Amino acid sequence: MTSDPPLSDAVDDTAADIATMEIRGAATIAAAAADAVAAQARETASETDDPAAFERAMRRAGRRLYDTRPTAVSLPNALRYTLGRMEGDDVETLHDSVLAATTAFTDRLDRAQNDLGRVGANRLRDGDTVMTHCHSTDALSCVEHAVEQGKDISAIVKETRPRNQGHITATQLRDLGVDVTLIVDSAARRYLDEADHVLVGADSIAADGGVVNKIGTSGLAVNARERGVPIMVAAQTIKLHPDTLTGHTVEIEMRDEAEVIEADAREAIGDITVDNPAFDVTPPRYVDAIVTESGQFPPESIVTLMRELFGESADRPWEEPDATTADATGPTA
Amino acid sequence: MTSDPPLSDAVDDTAADIATMEIRGAATIAAAAADAVAAQARETASETDDPAAFERAMRRAGRRLYDTRPTAVSLPNALRYTLGRMEGDDVETLHDSVLAATTAFTDRLDRAQNDLGRVGANRLRDGDTVMTHCHSTDALSCVEHAVEQGKDISAIVKETRPRNQGHITATQLRDLGVDVTLIVDSAARRYLDEADHVLVGADSIAADGGVVNKIGTSGLAVNARERGVPIMVAAQTIKLHPDTLTGHTVEIEMRDEAEVIEADAREAIGDITVDNPAFDVTPPRYVDAIVTESGQFPPESIVTLMRELFGESADRPWEEPDATTADATGPTA
Amino acid sequence: MTSDPPLSDAVDDTAADIATMEIRGAATIAAAAADAVAAQARETASETDDPAAFERAMRRAGRRLYDTRPTAVSLPNALRYTLGRMEGDDVETLHDSVLAATTAFTDRLDRAQNDLGRVGANRLRDGDTVMTHCHSTDALSCVEHAVEQGKDISAIVKETRPRNQGHITATQLRDLGVDVTLIVDSAARRYLDEADHVLVGADSIAADGGVVNKIGTSGLAVNARERGVPIMVAAQTIKLHPDTLTGHTVEIEMRDEAEVIEADAREAIGDITVDNPAFDVTPPRYVDAIVTESGQFPPESIVTLMRELFGESADRPWEEPDATTADATGPTA
Amino acid sequence: MTSDPPLSDAVDDTAADIATMEIRGAATIAAAAADAVAAQARETASETDDPAAFERAMRRAGRRLYDTRPTAVSLPNALRYTLGRMEGDDVETLHDSVLAATTAFTDRLDRAQNDLGRVGANRLRDGDTVMTHCHSTDALSCVEHAVEQGKDISAIVKETRPRNQGHITATQLRDLGVDVTLIVDSAARRYLDEADHVLVGADSIAADGGVVNKIGTSGLAVNARERGVPIMVAAQTIKLHPDTLTGHTVEIEMRDEAEVIEADAREAIGDITVDNPAFDVTPPRYVDAIVTESGQFPPESIVTLMRELFGESADRPWEEPDATTADATGPTA
Amino acid sequence: MTSDPPLSDAVDDTAADIATMEIRGAATIAAAAADAVAAQARETASETDDPAAFERAMRRAGRRLYDTRPTAVSLPNALRYTLGRMEGDDVETLHDSVLAATTAFTDRLDRAQNDLGRVGANRLRDGDTVMTHCHSTDALSCVEHAVEQGKDISAIVKETRPRNQGHITATQLRDLGVDVTLIVDSAARRYLDEADHVLVGADSIAADGGVVNKIGTSGLAVNARERGVPIMVAAQTIKLHPDTLTGHTVEIEMRDEAEVIEADAREAIGDITVDNPAFDVTPPRYVDAIVTESGQFPPESIVTLMRELFGESADRPWEEPDATTADATGPTA
Amino acid sequence: MTSDPPLSDAVDDTAADIATMEIRGAATIAAAAADAVAAQARETASETDDPAAFERAMRRAGRRLYDTRPTAVSLPNALRYTLGRMEGDDVETLHDSVLAATTAFTDRLDRAQNDLGRVGANRLRDGDTVMTHCHSTDALSCVEHAVEQGKDISAIVKETRPRNQGHITATQLRDLGVDVTLIVDSAARRYLDEADHVLVGADSIAADGGVVNKIGTSGLAVNARERGVPIMVAAQTIKLHPDTLTGHTVEIEMRDEAEVIEADAREAIGDITVDNPAFDVTPPRYVDAIVTESGQFPPESIVTLMRELFGESADRPWEEPDATTADATGPTA
Repeated sequence: MTSDPPLSDAVDDTAADIATMEIRGAATIAAAAADAVAAQARETASETDDPAAFERAMRRAGRRLYDTRPTAVSLPNALRYTLGRMEGDDVETLHDSVLAATTAFTDRLDRAQNDLGRVGANRLRDGDTVMTHCHSTDALSCVEHAVEQGKDISAIVKETRPRNQGHITATQLRDLGVDVTLIVDSAARRYLDEADHVLVGADSIAADGGVVNKIGTSGLAVNARERGVPIMVAAQTIKLHPDTLTGHTVEIEMRDEAEVIEADAREAIGDITVDNPAFDVTPPRYVDAIVTESGQFPPESIVTLMRELFGESADRPWEEPDATTADATGPTA
Repeated sequence: MTSDPPLSDAVDDTAADIATMEIRGAATIAAAAADAVAAQARETASETDDPAAFERAMRRAGRRLYDTRPTAVSLPNALRYTLGRMEGDDVETLHDSVLAATTAFTDRLDRAQNDLGRVGANRLRDGDTVMTHCHSTDALSCVEHAVEQGKDISAIVKETRPRNQGHITATQLRDLGVDVTLIVDSAARRYLDEADHVLVGADSIAADGGVVNKIGTSGLAVNARERGVPIMVAAQTIKLHPDTLTGHTVEIEMRDEAEVIEADAREAIGDITVDNPAFDVTPPRYVDAIVTESGQFPPESIVTLMRELFGESADRPWEEPDATTADATGPTA
Repeated sequence: MTSDPPLSDAVDDTAADIATMEIRGAATIAAAAADAVAAQARETASETDDPAAFERAMRRAGRRLYDTRPTAVSLPNALRYTLGRMEGDDVETLHDSVLAATTAFTDRLDRAQNDLGRVGANRLRDGDTVMTHCHSTDALSCVEHAVEQGKDISAIVKETRPRNQGHITATQLRDLGVDVTLIVDSAARRYLDEADHVLVGADSIAADGGVVNKIGTSGLAVNARERGVPIMVAAQTIKLHPDTLTGHTVEIEMRDEAEVIEADAREAIGDITVDNPAFDVTPPRYVDAIVTESGQFPPESIVTLMRELFGESADRPWEEPDATTADATGPTA
Repeated sequence: MTSDPPLSDAVDDTAADIATMEIRGAATIAAAAADAVAAQARETASETDDPAAFERAMRRAGRRLYDTRPTAVSLPNALRYTLGRMEGDDVETLHDSVLAATTAFTDRLDRAQNDLGRVGANRLRDGDTVMTHCHSTDALSCVEHAVEQGKDISAIVKETRPRNQGHITATQLRDLGVDVTLIVDSAARRYLDEADHVLVGADSIAADGGVVNKIGTSGLAVNARERGVPIMVAAQTIKLHPDTLTGHTVEIEMRDEAEVIEADAREAIGDITVDNPAFDVTPPRYVDAIVTESGQFPPESIVTLMRELFGESADRPWEEPDATTADATGPTA
Repeated sequence: MTSDPPLSDAVDDTAADIATMEIRGAATIAAAAADAVAAQARETASETDDPAAFERAMRRAGRRLYDTRPTAVSLPNALRYTLGRMEGDDVETLHDSVLAATTAFTDRLDRAQNDLGRVGANRLRDGDTVMTHCHSTDALSCVEHAVEQGKDISAIVKETRPRNQGHITATQLRDLGVDVTLIVDSAARRYLDEADHVLVGADSIAADGGVVNKIGTSGLAVNARERGVPIMVAAQTIKLHPDTLTGHTVEIEMRDEAEVIEADAREAIGDITVDNPAFDVTPPRYVDAIVTESGQFPPESIVTLMRELFGESADRPWEEPDATTADATGPTA
Repeated sequence: MTSDPPLSDAVDDTAADIATMEIRGAATIAAAAADAVAAQARETASETDDPAAFERAMRRAGRRLYDTRPTAVSLPNALRYTLGRMEGDDVETLHDSVLAATTAFTDRLDRAQNDLGRVGANRLRDGDTVMTHCHSTDALSCVEHAVEQGKDISAIVKETRPRNQGHITATQLRDLGVDVTLIVDSAARRYLDEADHVLVGADSIAADGGVVNKIGTSGLAVNARERGVPIMVAAQTIKLHPDTLTGHTVEIEMRDEAEVIEADAREAIGDITVDNPAFDVTPPRYVDAIVTESGQFPPESIVTLMRELFGESADRPWEEPDATTADATGPTA
């Protein structure tokens, strides 16, 4: 094992760039990881003809990449998809299987937002009004394709405190020619009677059908159900969170209080706590459809898609086969 | 009718001050109106012994006051309560009945927030956490009395966009020694699991049990019900809206968009609409109790209290008896 | 007691006309009964000066009238209202009290639909769409007043099988200039998204807040709540059912199967049962407001109005004071 | 004030018997208290002609009685009803008003369960099945009257752990000829599909419409609503809890753990906590009707009846007029 | 490509018969299409040994058939199932794969209603009552098998306006010996208390779990859930609508107004709109089970079955491989 | 067929031991059946080289085992898993496939509770409180692993009448160092506000997502949903009930009344029925997650797992291929 082929420079560089966040964004990270895996496969195949050594090298590359951002969901998904499809009894077959998987993964990724957008657009009818929360390029892709299909779409855009990503959404929808009304988050229930859909993205999606998204999504979904408005989540499959197959809950980031209140006002109030959770979890019973590049799904069946794409039981193909109870070291243990 | 007694200066001055908003705030306006009615009664009784003339003078004073702010709910309530109890066959009896009513009304008003606070405090148990929305002195009075009763109360305070009245609430609760956590409005559902009560005030309360309050209240109430947290509204009876007895809906003020978005950001986004409704309506089925100075009530029975205090069917005792279809000119016709 | 004053001819004639249904319709029956009570009071007062004999005569008249249609709700209400307010120690006082009550009742009845219509109209806003079920002049009065207030109202009219009273509603709404869409009953849920109100009348209203109305009302109300559309019931107070104060349930009439299926088709199918209930009961939790000539009420507080107008505990002032357990012989025992 | 008339022996004896629980049961305590008040009135009237002294003596009697069991709801209600109706300017009038009130109260009490039973029976139809929880003579009175009305009634009886009061209910229903099925508490949801009513009594009823009853009632009510079965609470008006008008919550008694687990088993398990709360609170939205001797009411309107019978805002007519913030010393402060 | 084998006469004839509706009914169309595909495969295999030409011919046959009724769901499903399983590198293998698929499809189709009926029958217990809406041979098959299993089944049959298909259902159930009660559609909620199941068929079933069926189904389902009655949908898998995988909504046919109102009555009413939608969509959360010939499924997992049987993402194996964005031209775009 | 290889003694012995309940418990039975199948395969392979004879022998062994306890769910699952994977054209291949399947099944079974426990533990957070019903080693395994992960877990343990399995749960949780509060079943709703999870096991799980578990589970789940507490079911996949794929309902055992009431008390009450159902069914909409050794699933997608593991449509690989309508003889027909 001492003479195992070395880690590809591509892997090292990609890992470094992910760690320093030069590579960021769910899709960008996933693509970079797949490319690095492919590079490793090519280089290793040229250096060894020992299939076991090849597999070890690939796993080591996977671990190197994984360790940079263990809580990002698209990164391990890229590794699961590509390394999970590695199979063969000789190096050539192994190499080919990895390359086939990285190519399939990258192709899928390239088309995903576009494909997803067309699926979501099909749910929108001419004259519909969508209510949005936060900013999601997946969700916007649905509106964009609907507009391209010649449909007249209006939007009620929640500003989405504390960071007002609704302003970005409003700008981009306006650029698409969509009629936009901007409101504060608290006004949502009053405007739901004018909405035909709630349309949001997702940070990640859990095996139990829960949708992790910007804080405020779950409260909006509960109100939308009460008002009879369907809720549609637009999310590429790289957002599916296989760790949740083994029961892991998704850890919710607590962000800086300065996003919520300015320093002066904060000081004036005195000794209080300011809490700023970034996300919340919407239970599947409040979501009508999850729109992905593989089509639309009820949230309760997303687990089947997750297992198809990324393996059952959250396997971690970058770990040595004898590693045990992997999930106990998962991100949210 | 030409020689009818003149309008009291007190009425004229009070009307002017209400119109220019030198007198403002629901309770302050109500008290000033009652005082002006009393002044008119005293002056008129010294000028005429014709009971019909006395009644005409009193109604004229009522109309003068009413016309300054027809949409304020506490002003017509003060007039309904005081002029509605005017009765007698001679000027002395009429005068006495008006003075008795103005005294009773003013006394009640003086004690109302305190009495209400004690009622509301009784609903809170030692160790409870309340979630607040906006800023309401009636709601704060409940917490203040609970603290005085020796109870340890914590609070989760929603900032309440767009005007951040939650900052005032946070400051005042902190001054009472309450443990305060400030959150953005969208974080409410996530924090409801830690709350034992939602506690809000009211701008006005309708005959059908609907609670008009700061925008965001109804969405919060729907989520509180979904999470199993009871909702308590603290409101003095001058907030009961007798016009709603005759089906009038409460007109919702649309405020300036500058409260929602700063001019620069607004301009950058371009041609969109910014809507800024000040209030929304929470249906009675999402409210567990309305706490008043007369005790607590389920919202569905508040109409009975409204009729007891301010007369049935939204009578307008300041109008001439032959005036017809008064309600057709109501604030929200 | 043998020489008690006789029954008035007016009472006899009215009773006969009610029995033969020459006098029909809730309001018409109530007015006729009140007139007959007044006639009896006038005649008896001229024939005796024994207050006990006067009271006996009045009660006897009440019984005569009551026995013609014990299940009609407006008839006993007329008797309760008028005989229930009879009081005095001498015949003149008794007579005057009855006449005052019959006059008050008749005046109220004359204005009721108009007053109710204005209350209901105030709940409708310019541009609103109402969904109707069956045909109710009380409900139509609300729309009529809204149109007179200058509001643009549209209507989705359910045909209301088996007797298609929706056709009458459609015709009358069209005559008011309302934009009408006629649908089959089963299409209601699909069209609720376009409705701002469900607006129906009532056959009678129970003390527990239940609304007895044309079969299909309760299913519509459940769907309206699910779709977030408020439900408004328009009903004069003569529809309040005091027997229900003592727990009586309202018996639901089963009508002829020929209304449901034509004879030929019926015969072709063969040995089945055809059930044709005329009414159903909508629980109060699915009704947002009951609109009466005394203003609007949440259904849960209608019992208070019922007791105010018609006496507590379903007193039957036409029965001899020593009659016991009256309610055990009530219409729905 | 030194020579004030003494406390009646009847008051002293009754107070002692209540304190030692020789007098027990809500109705029995209430009747005894009313009798003692009447005795005090008679004795005091024979000893003084100073109306102020008479009033002081009556209040003192009230306090003596009240202090024996401040948490019993029927005892203060008896005092509120009788002392709250004391009025007059001389001793004779005062005496007469008290005697009239005690007589009215006692008469009402004598008839209450019977009257209530007939009201409740009217809600039951021939062939209906009721599901019961715990043991309530008020609830049983409803079934008894239904059986007397010739209706065939069946019952599903929950055993009602920990004290198995369901066994008593089963025995008494069986004695009425009712077909009884006994089940464990956990089997309730499975058997609700066979039930037409849930029928329970109440320990007390709060101003916000909450029903305090044997632990398990609220869980049953939630399940009954989910299964579409109406919930009916049978409770005499002496169970209405006026302290709750001022927001007081009803303190829930925690009973001995020996009722839950036998000593041997307890010891075998070791160091755990055994909690044994006697009651829970059912929110009004899960109750369809409260049946009283004054008729049936939606729970949301019971506050109106409470104020009619026992005074507004939980007045305590046994306290000196200058006593302040009485409610702060209430049973659950 | 000029010398490609010709279209089979069988394909031409079948296409013509489908277009003229001589072949109609979901199962009949599907069977005919599969037979035509088989005929094309046999003929083409005898005419060419160029696998590419074979595939082109098969796709052309598919397009010819598809174009006759692009909105029928069973027709494209037959094509997806049979052409989607075509694979091989030479004509013989291709031919055999198509024949195997057409045989499997036809065999499945032959047994489907019977198999489905046995599955559905297993959900029914002896003594159960089902409530039906419209007429569905799939639903009737469930009852028929239950009767064959010796179970005593009763039925409440909704007439199903406007076309009264309930009469057919009533007749056929009666012929099975089922005890039938016919009601108007509006009476459903009243009779749900007597029903153990709602049992309906489906026009088509969407990937998000929505059930497209005769107008009135969704309103019935909402009421059934409110009454605690489970809802069972009987539908062969040819009703699964793969276009909905890509978000397409199912277009709802608007039928002639003459079905709703007779010409005379229509004219008498005057200028109104009469809307007659044929179907509505029941959300999956109101459906308890979808019964197919492959067993029963929760509606939320039907998408998995859809993908198994008819391919992922609504592939259209009759289109040339380079056709892009196929779904943009789907039936409901 | 006369000279078919004999039944293995291992099969005979195992069948006898299952029949006499010497072998009991879902997992133990399943393991024994798999071992017996393996023994039969080994013995038969040594006795014949006729593949048809081998298959017949294996099926006969399956039938022998199956017939001992046709209603146990783990026994037929063991047979389905092992015999359902038998394939090959010669005896050696057939033998090897059976052995591979029995080994895989047994391995899986050995690890199942442990794997499941780790998945369930991941859903629990440090400081959480679980509410339990009945006694389930699967559920306890979740808590045990959470404790091993260093989490502080508390428990509210329902006693679970009539057999008080809660005492066993309390003891075992206490032994794990968990802080335990024991309550009667009726106290559940009151304590749900203090619970973060409801955690129960399952007797079996149906294809429609229904969870069959100890009587009381469904009522608890309805209350948990109403209180906003998620419900988690811990169940190994041998609890999945493939018969339900074909619509079979799970027969609920009625147990002896002596478990509910002691003989003396029973006799004292007299002629009543005592019903003692062992289980109830919780609909999937009240369950948030089913935790298995294969990961967690929403209940609506469990059917997919069921089909993966045990075959589609409840195949019975122990029956002769020409056996028809197998399901008509299923356990709950």
